[in-house]
This record gives sequence, structure tokens and C-alpha cells, in this order.
Amino acid sequence: MKKVAVIMGSDSDFPAVKPAILKLKSFGIPVEAHVMSAHRTPEQAAAFAGKAQADGFGVIIAAAGKAAHLAGVLAAHTTLPVIGIPIKSSTLDGLDALLATVQMPSGIPVATVAIDGAENAAILAAQMLALSDEELSCKLADMKKDMSQKVGEKDKKLQEMMNEL
Amino acid sequence: MKKVAVIMGSDSDFPAVKPAILKLKSFGIPVEAHVMSAHRTPEQAAAFAGKAQADGFGVIIAAAGKAAHLAGVLAAHTTLPVIGIPIKSSTLDGLDALLATVQMPSGIPVATVAIDGAENAAILAAQMLALSDEELSCKLADMKKDMSQKVGEKDKKLQEMMNEL
Amino acid sequence: MKKVAVIMGSDSDFPAVKPAILKLKSFGIPVEAHVMSAHRTPEQAAAFAGKAQADGFGVIIAAAGKAAHLAGVLAAHTTLPVIGIPIKSSTLDGLDALLATVQMPSGIPVATVAIDGAENAAILAAQMLALSDEELSCKLADMKKDMSQKVGEKDKKLQEMMNEL
Amino acid sequence: MKKVAVIMGSDSDFPAVKPAILKLKSFGIPVEAHVMSAHRTPEQAAAFAGKAQADGFGVIIAAAGKAAHLAGVLAAHTTLPVIGIPIKSSTLDGLDALLATVQMPSGIPVATVAIDGAENAAILAAQMLALSDEELSCKLADMKKDMSQKVGEKDKKLQEMMNEL
Amino acid sequence: MKKVAVIMGSDSDFPAVKPAILKLKSFGIPVEAHVMSAHRTPEQAAAFAGKAQADGFGVIIAAAGKAAHLAGVLAAHTTLPVIGIPIKSSTLDGLDALLATVQMPSGIPVATVAIDGAENAAILAAQMLALSDEELSCKLADMKKDMSQKVGEKDKKLQEMMNEL
Amino acid sequence: MKKVAVIMGSDSDFPAVKPAILKLKSFGIPVEAHVMSAHRTPEQAAAFAGKAQADGFGVIIAAAGKAAHLAGVLAAHTTLPVIGIPIKSSTLDGLDALLATVQMPSGIPVATVAIDGAENAAILAAQMLALSDEELSCKLADMKKDMSQKVGEKDKKLQEMMNEL
Amino acid sequence: MKKVAVIMGSDSDFPAVKPAILKLKSFGIPVEAHVMSAHRTPEQAAAFAGKAQADGFGVIIAAAGKAAHLAGVLAAHTTLPVIGIPIKSSTLDGLDALLATVQMPSGIPVATVAIDGAENAAILAAQMLALSDEELSCKLADMKKDMSQKVGEKDKKLQEMMNEL
Amino acid sequence: MKKVAVIMGSDSDFPAVKPAILKLKSFGIPVEAHVMSAHRTPEQAAAFAGKAQADGFGVIIAAAGKAAHLAGVLAAHTTLPVIGIPIKSSTLDGLDALLATVQMPSGIPVATVAIDGAENAAILAAQMLALSDEELSCKLADMKKDMSQKVGEKDKKLQEMMNEL
Repeated sequence: MKKVAVIMGSDSDFPAVKPAILKLKSFGIPVEAHVMSAHRTPEQAAAFAGKAQADGFGVIIAAAGKAAHLAGVLAAHTTLPVIGIPIKSSTLDGLDALLATVQMPSGIPVATVAIDGAENAAILAAQMLALSDEELSCKLADMKKDMSQKVGEKDKKLQEMMNEL
Repeated sequence: MKKVAVIMGSDSDFPAVKPAILKLKSFGIPVEAHVMSAHRTPEQAAAFAGKAQADGFGVIIAAAGKAAHLAGVLAAHTTLPVIGIPIKSSTLDGLDALLATVQMPSGIPVATVAIDGAENAAILAAQMLALSDEELSCKLADMKKDMSQKVGEKDKKLQEMMNEL
Repeated sequence: MKKVAVIMGSDSDFPAVKPAILKLKSFGIPVEAHVMSAHRTPEQAAAFAGKAQADGFGVIIAAAGKAAHLAGVLAAHTTLPVIGIPIKSSTLDGLDALLATVQMPSGIPVATVAIDGAENAAILAAQMLALSDEELSCKLADMKKDMSQKVGEKDKKLQEMMNEL
Repeated sequence: MKKVAVIMGSDSDFPAVKPAILKLKSFGIPVEAHVMSAHRTPEQAAAFAGKAQADGFGVIIAAAGKAAHLAGVLAAHTTLPVIGIPIKSSTLDGLDALLATVQMPSGIPVATVAIDGAENAAILAAQMLALSDEELSCKLADMKKDMSQKVGEKDKKLQEMMNEL
Repeated sequence: MKKVAVIMGSDSDFPAVKPAILKLKSFGIPVEAHVMSAHRTPEQAAAFAGKAQADGFGVIIAAAGKAAHLAGVLAAHTTLPVIGIPIKSSTLDGLDALLATVQMPSGIPVATVAIDGAENAAILAAQMLALSDEELSCKLADMKKDMSQKVGEKDKKLQEMMNEL
Repeated sequence: MKKVAVIMGSDSDFPAVKPAILKLKSFGIPVEAHVMSAHRTPEQAAAFAGKAQADGFGVIIAAAGKAAHLAGVLAAHTTLPVIGIPIKSSTLDGLDALLATVQMPSGIPVATVAIDGAENAAILAAQMLALSDEELSCKLADMKKDMSQKVGEKDKKLQEMMNEL
Repeated sequence: MKKVAVIMGSDSDFPAVKPAILKLKSFGIPVEAHVMSAHRTPEQAAAFAGKAQADGFGVIIAAAGKAAHLAGVLAAHTTLPVIGIPIKSSTLDGLDALLATVQMPSGIPVATVAIDGAENAAILAAQMLALSDEELSCKLADMKKDMSQKVGEKDKKLQEMMNEL
Repeated sequence: MKKVAVIMGSDSDFPAVKPAILKLKSFGIPVEAHVMSAHRTPEQAAAFAGKAQADGFGVIIAAAGKAAHLAGVLAAHTTLPVIGIPIKSSTLDGLDALLATVQMPSGIPVATVAIDGAENAAILAAQMLALSDEELSCKLADMKKDMSQKVGEKDKKLQEMMNEL
């Protein structure tokens, strides 16, 4: 099975990125995580992305804040799909990271999820891998049913709270 | 080979979406396009997304403007990866469509590309399908080399312009 | 008397939505509240809105954050007036929810109130129902007088504070 | 049948407001339109709103740009539902008008529609009046079916365009 | 000497407005403060502004948050200069109040100061009154010298801190 | 009678500033206009503001775009009231000029009007001078009546247009 | 004398960048211009920046739009000062390019100028080189005097226009 | 060796500016810090900048918040490169300070770094001085290697954390 790489620009991004790692593991997807910086270790980032496909990766998830170039820089060196998580790490509420991640020029897409949306990045990666993995596809369908069921349970709890108003 | 669906909220979005369709065709990817609205034809949208996987689709691309719910609504009914193209169609420069597309809640990701970024949506779809299609993967690598070469040619032209300054 | 439905995208929205429920009850308007998600339980949301009119509802209030599609999705399935409360639940101060709620395409309006403006959503619902309910209309007029009087009392308190400066 | 008042801050707003008037007339709803300014004719605006209910109005639609106070000022003088249309009339793309219309304080709601969303304001007014008018309710349901059908027709046209690509 | 009126939309604005009152008192300017709401007590606000000039006021300062209509509504009823203080009281950092205060239509200006800029509102009012009051003009010149001197003192302290680095 | 100075950062701002000059002249207020730049001619700007009071000026109006420092720099050198007109002259719709003009630090207010709000700057200046000039005060009251009357005339025209619909 | 490199992400940026090239030439500074892309030719960009110092460059100017990574990517590979020009080339007025250029993480600065501020990028580069080049320093001082003089001339023209009003 | 001046608009900015001073000292660059205000002590600011070059300064760093005019005002009086640090000190997250610092008119550049980006301002100043100082240039290269190494160490730590998941 193809691996997913989770790259973060700084170890301070780990708490925000952790849900992606846990979600990928919960799907049984092999995951490798690295701290790599588009600006502080550009050669490593380029080298990693350049041979990611050969190294058995299927998807790269990149999380970065501020002028978030990480996802774009990785995407520049691979034809694998790259998912970008804009991280809120400046005073600007993550809007800078969102725009720096999503507004990519023609030719080099970054599949951008919500600000601090690590869990969705993992689900999106799973959806991509599930295109050729029926078991994973079933797990995603199960997760969808679970989510729906949980909303139902929350609705029941709400009815109790309504009775107490 | 799995098909890509290109759904647009209105036929007025066609000019903005056309580059995605042309790019997909240039990769030899079978593509089906539909006008469907999250708000005017919600049942059709739900039905289409609900059976897209069974109908042989691998990726859904959705383009919409303003309070752009289309990609999210389709994603709610499928576990296929859904790519969202925010369209500039209000007075707000596409910022409303970007936020309404990318800021999805946990559980239902939309892979968002740049505002009016139709071509990148197609490339991203191709990257997803290429995970299990070596030929397509090669085409993507070739496209990357082409892009690089074209930049080189543009640089040469620039040198001529510099001489004329 | 027609009922008001208060739908929230997640039970975490309950504290923000509660003032709407309390206000509606204070007017003596029958209210039903549900957790329903445009993305996690789209069928339930569609079904609920689809038969809301037949079920005796007059107005639907929907509260959601981030890419807030809930109000729009409900509005797509009913001709009852739908009031949208954008909830601040992302890093973007509720601006994403506001734009995703208010910027609806032609044909499917959502009556949008302020970010976290639950109380006003209830008053707006009451104003709609009061169009054919004179007693409720009187209650609204009384509330308006009360508000005016309270401002007068606050002004008196201010005079005391001014004397202490 | 209750009338709808369409108030605009300036006659330069007429082109942006006209779709609301035409839509209301198409529903057979009696409509009265006025130029009134929260700032240039505050007394008239207050007087009009203060006796709108007695004068047979059921809903007030107010359209204004820039620091758009008109809807709020009218709402301050009536308990009728007031619908606000933020008009793009400054350099700020209508964002100023949107915030000045929607961010009302507790107690005085304005039902805000999209920037330049005149048609939706009319539909929303019709939805409110339809709460006690079955015929109007049917017209709204018919309009919804029409919209859905038109999307279907546009989809057919799209298929022709796809064949020509 | 002409009085300055300090009007706030809610008593919850008092802490943000207090520096204006204290500053005006420090200049020896007679000041009257009131809680008045453009939306909850529109008649009082209109009446107050309408006779403010006759009542001996020279300048009106109005502080309000969210869809901050207060300054504009007062300005609509007087030809006295009206100073607007946008108050940060919503989730939007005061940007809504700033735009709703400053973007007034032609004919009815509001002299807007910074978000939560109460002290500057008082100084601006003093500058206006000083146009015909030489003593007040001197006080303003003295304040300017004081400010300059204090910066000098702070610079000295900084040199000490620099030595400790 | 005290003069009003109208300072613009560049002669390209003249069309945007001209309505202020014409309005001031229509009130019979003596006006002097200058091109002066906070950045290109800082000494002249400082010198002008420093002796503006002695030179018989009562109010300074300053118009500038982009990082609009002009009003603030003039205010730094005088205790006269300074009115700032943010000019839309960059790609950012005048938002940069608005924030750079209005967000002044404590101690140095700038009375800011709307983006490109030259006419209101003139009226505000007139309101300040009218504090000690009864004739000017009457002219302002007349202008207010005129504005109100014109709205009435526009309303009449609207009725004609309504009949033609 | 050290050379200045002017790098643009696309040849479509040439018109926006040209004023920088012309200004540098007017100072007699040797300039080399290249089209290079952080995303399409990342290796060339890295290689160029990596040996820019050895190749006799003193300053690198980089111009790019949208998710403008070019300046940051170049800065990652050199210790020369890198000046970033955010280019307006998306629907977002250049705000995306500004944030993606200026919000660099600690360790890798980009000296950012205004959106489309090519001329200022050239002047800034000249100021840097002038630190060890007295002749260039004099040219900058002369340019400053020229600018001041031109403002004076514009002021004279304005006086003529004032007489014609 | 040329000195660097670090000017802050208020002593309350010292904590945000301190990293710049420490970084400059770590490079062995002589640094002088001052509190000076574009608005409260404009003459001192002008005088300081006017003779900074003669006083042995090579670069001026200016930090200010809100309508941050300090860097621009200093740049108006010198041809030395001026680096601007926008400080988050208002409710607007530093966006006001960023725009007021970076959007300078043609002729007077300010080299702007990220909001609260003091350390990068120091590195940028060092890069400028290193153009004619080989030793400093080496220190910058060493710092770059250090940064890269630290990322490697953080990556190792991350691997340990991954094992514990």
C-alpha cells in the first residue's frame, strides 16, 4: 500500500498536524512524518518530494503557516497529489497561510483544506488512495455512516437539553 | 479508466470551467460535465454524487461562485475525492466562494484550488487518477518538463526584450 | 400556531443558539430544535426541510459555522423563509460563515442575521409569524417599548457614574 | 393582501433594486417604492416605518450602499420584518454595505440578503407573506419547480457544447 | 463655553468611552454623557441631536459597535460636527463598526477616529472648539509639548534597558 | 474668516479632491490648495502645518492614497483639526489609505471621512468653522433642507418610473 | 560594481517589472533579468540563487503574483538581500501576493515593497548597494531633490488650476 | 563598521522589537535604539533620519503599529535603506500597520518584513551590511547552516514522538 507523507514546516506545527497522523493510522494507512522547511531546508524538501513517488509515497500532506510555501515547494518537485493545510500561526488568523497555499499558479495545484483542517487532509488523502483500494473505500463509507449516526445521537441529547430549558 | 465529473452551478460558469474540461481531455481522461445546483436542483446533485462511484467516476470537480455550496454538497453524498473551484461571480472577487468552498467541517473535505483555477483542478484530478495509472503518471511528468521548458523559452525572449531596452 | 424549527450543524453550536430558543419560548412560539448537518446528514436535512411546511413549521432557523451551508441546503428544499445565523467557529472570526450564509444565488434567499446573532434570528422569526398573529405582533411592540425603557434606565445609571468621575 | 414597501437610499440604486420590484409584481404582490434616506430624510424614513403596519404593509425591503443604515433605521421604527439589500456603491465591493446592514445589535434584526441581491429580497418577502396566503405559497413552489427545470435545460445545452469541444 | 455630548449606544461601551470623557474634563470642557441607541431609542436620539445646537452643544461624540449607525443617525439631525468612535464589540475586530461609521454618503459627514480611539475623539472635539477659544488652543499646544517630552523620557528609559541587554 | 487648506499628496489626486474645493467655495469659505507630500517634501509639509494657525487657517484637509501618511504628518505639526480623505489609488480599493489615515495613535487625531469622500470633508470643515460663524451655520442648515427636498423630488420621479413598469 | 538580478515568475509580469529594470539602469547599476518560476523551474531558481553571490550579484529582486513564493524560494538559497514585489495577477487585488511575500518565517526575510511597486524595489536595491558606493549614494540624494522639486512644480500648476475654478 | 538604528514608535513596542536588537548584537553589529514618534516627536524623527548617514548609520529599522507612519517618515528624510516592522498593536491584527508600512508611494521605499517580524528585520539589515563585509557575510552563511541543522534535529525529535503515537 502506498504511504502518505506528512510534512510540517516546524515542530511547533505538530499539535495542529497530529489529527492528520492519527486519522491516517486509524485507516491503516502507513504514514511517515517529517519536519522540513521550504525556507530553512529547501534542498531536503526538494529532494524528498523529488523521490517521494519512487520511495513508495502516494500522497504528500504539507502543513505550514504564515507565507506558507511548503506545499507549493513540494508540489513543484513531484507529480503526486499534494494536500496543503494552512496553519494559523501568525496574527492574521491563518488567512495569510490559506492564500499562500491555495492561490497556486496554473500547472502546480495544491489540494487545500480548511485552516487547521488536519483531519480533513487525512480523509482526503484516504479518498485518493481508496480510488484503487476497495477496502479503504469501505472504511471511508463506514466512517461516513458513523458520522451520520453520531449526529443522530447528538440530536437525541439535544432533545433532553430542550426538555430542561 | 475512471471518469471525472465536472459539475458547475450554472451554465454561466462554463467559460471559467472549460479549461478544466480541455485539460482532462488532453490527458485522455474521460470526462462528463453537468449543470447542477446545490440550491436549485439539490435532489439531482445528491443523487448524482450518491451513485458517482458506482457509475464509474473517480473524481468529482465542482465549480461554483458566491456562497459556493456545490462542492460541499456533492462531497456530503460520496466518498470520492471532490475538488472545488471557487468561481469569481459576485462583487467580492471570489473570496466568498473560496471561503465557502475550503472551510469545510471535519469529516467532509473538499480539495480546493485557486479562485478560477480550473486548469489546476484538472491536473489535480489527473494526479489522483495517476496513483493507479502509470501511463497517466508519465503524462504528468511530461507536462512538468514541458512547463519547465516553456519557462526557459520565455526567459530567452526576455533576454531579447532586455537588449531592446 | 405555526412552529419554528431551530437547526444547528453541531451540538457545539448549542450555547450560541440557545438565546434563539429562549427568546422564541418567551414569545410563546412553539419551537423544535435539532442537530442536523448539511454535510454529515444531508438526507435528514433535506427530508426535514422538504416536509417542514406540511409538519406545521412556519419558519426555519439554521445556525452553522465555517463553510456554513446548512441554511442554504435547508432553503433548497422548502419555500418557507429560512433564517441563517453565521456562527464564529473557525479562526476567521465568523467572516467565512457570514459570507457562506448570506451570498446565496438568485432564487434561494437566506435571511441572514449578524454573526452569533441568535436572539435576532428569533425576533425575526417572530416578526414573520406576527404578520398573521395580532397577539404576537403586540408582544413585539411591547418588547420594543421595553428595550427603549431599558436604555433610559441605563442612561440614568450612566448619570450616576458621571457624577463619580 | 399586505403590501411590500421597497425603499432605496438614492434613485441611483434603482437599477439594482428594480429586480425586486419586478419579482414582487410577478407574484401579484402589491408594491410601493420610495426614495428615502436614513441621513438626508430621517424624519420621513422614521415616519414611514412608524406607520407602515397601519398603512397595510407587511414587509419592508430597504436597499442602501456604503455605511448602509437605511434598513436598520427603518427596523428601529417598526416591528414588521425588514429585509436589507446591501448595494455595491463604494470602492469596497459592497463589503461595507453588507456589514453595516447585517451586523445589527440584539433586539433589532435586519433580514439581510446577498450584496445586490434584490431578486432574493423579493422572494424572501413573498415567503414571509405566504405564511398566511396559500395561493402565494403555491406560486413559490411553482417557481422552485421552474428553476429546477431550467437547470435541466441548461444541462442539456451543456451536453451540446461538450459535443462541440 | 459650548458643551460636548458623548453618546454611547450601550452602557457596555462605557469603559471604551470613558477616556474621552476624562480627556474632555481635563481640558475643562463641559461634557454631558448619554446612553442612546440609534435602534432602540431612535426618537430620543433624533430629538437630542435635533436640539443639540440650541441646547448649547458644540460637538457630538458618538460611540457604537457592530453595524454602528449611531453617529450617522445623530449627524442626520444636526449640522454640528459629529465625531464617530467605532467600538470593537463584535467578533469582527471593530472593522464592521469602522466601515459603518466612516463610509457615510455625501452630505452627512462623520469625523471618524480609530477603532476604540476615545481619547482622540476628545482631542479632536477640543481642536474644533479651540478654533474660537484661545485658552483651549493653548492647552492643546501644551499637551502636544507634554507628549513630545514624554517620548523623550521613554527614550531615556530605553537607553537604560539597552545597557542591561 | 479662517481659511481652509486643502493639501493633496499628488496632483493626480486633484480630480478626487476637487469636489471639496468647490464645496468650500460654495459656502464662501476662503480656500488654499497645495500639492505637498509627506514623503517627497516632508519639510514643506511640516513647515506648512507648523505655521498654518498663524497663517490664518482654521482647518486642514489632507487627501492621500496608499500608505496615506499625509494627514497624520500634518496633524503632527499643528493643533488645528485635520481632516483626512483616504484616496483609492492602489489596487486595494482604498482600504490601505483608509486604515493608514484613521488608525492614528492616541494624541494625534485625524478626522477621517469616507474613501474618496471629498465633499464630506468640505462639509465637515464648514461645520467646524460654523461653531463660531452663525451665517455659515445657517448655510449648512439650508443645505440640509435642500438635500431633503431633493430626495423628495427623486421620490416623485421614482413614482413615474414605477408607473411605467 | 555588484549586479542586481530581477527575477519574474512569468513573462506576463514583465510590464509590471519593467520600471524596476529601467530605474536600475538609470542609476547605472548593471542588471540581469530572468523568467524563473518557484514552481515550474524550482531547480533553476535554487541554482541561480545559490550561486548569485559568487556570480557577482549584490541584490535579488523577485516579482510574483498569487501564492507568490518566488522571493521566498530565492531567499532560501542565498544570504544576499532579496526584495519581493507582490504582483496583482489574481482576482484578489494583489493581497494574496502581498501576504505570501511578506509573511516570511523567522530566519529568511524578504524585503517587501508595495503591490506592483517595481520602481521602489529598484530604489531600495540602489540604497543597499549605495552603502559601499558613494557615487550611487549621491545619485540617490539627487533623485530625492528632484522628486521634491517636481512636487513644487506640480504645486505651481495646481495654483493655475485653482485660479480657473 | 556602520551602525544600525532601531527606532520604535513607543516603549510599549520594546518587547516586540527586542529580538531585532539581540540578533543584531549576536552578529556583532553596533546598534542604537530610540523611542521616537512620527506623530509625537516629528522633528526629532526628521532630524535623526536626516543626519543618520553622517552619524555613521547604515540601516534604519523602524517598528510601529496602527497607522504605522514611522518607517515612511524616516525614509522621507534619508537615502539609507529603511526597514519597517509592522507591529500588531490595534484590534486589527497588524493588518493596518502592514498596509501603512508597505504601501509606500513611488520614490520612497520601505523594506517591509512580516507583522511582528523583528528578528527578520535584523537579519535583513545584516544582509545589507554584509554586501561590503565578508566576515558578516560568513556569519549569515553560518546562521543559515545552523537553521538547517536545527530543522534536522527537530525532525529527529518528531520521529521519537511518532514512535510514541
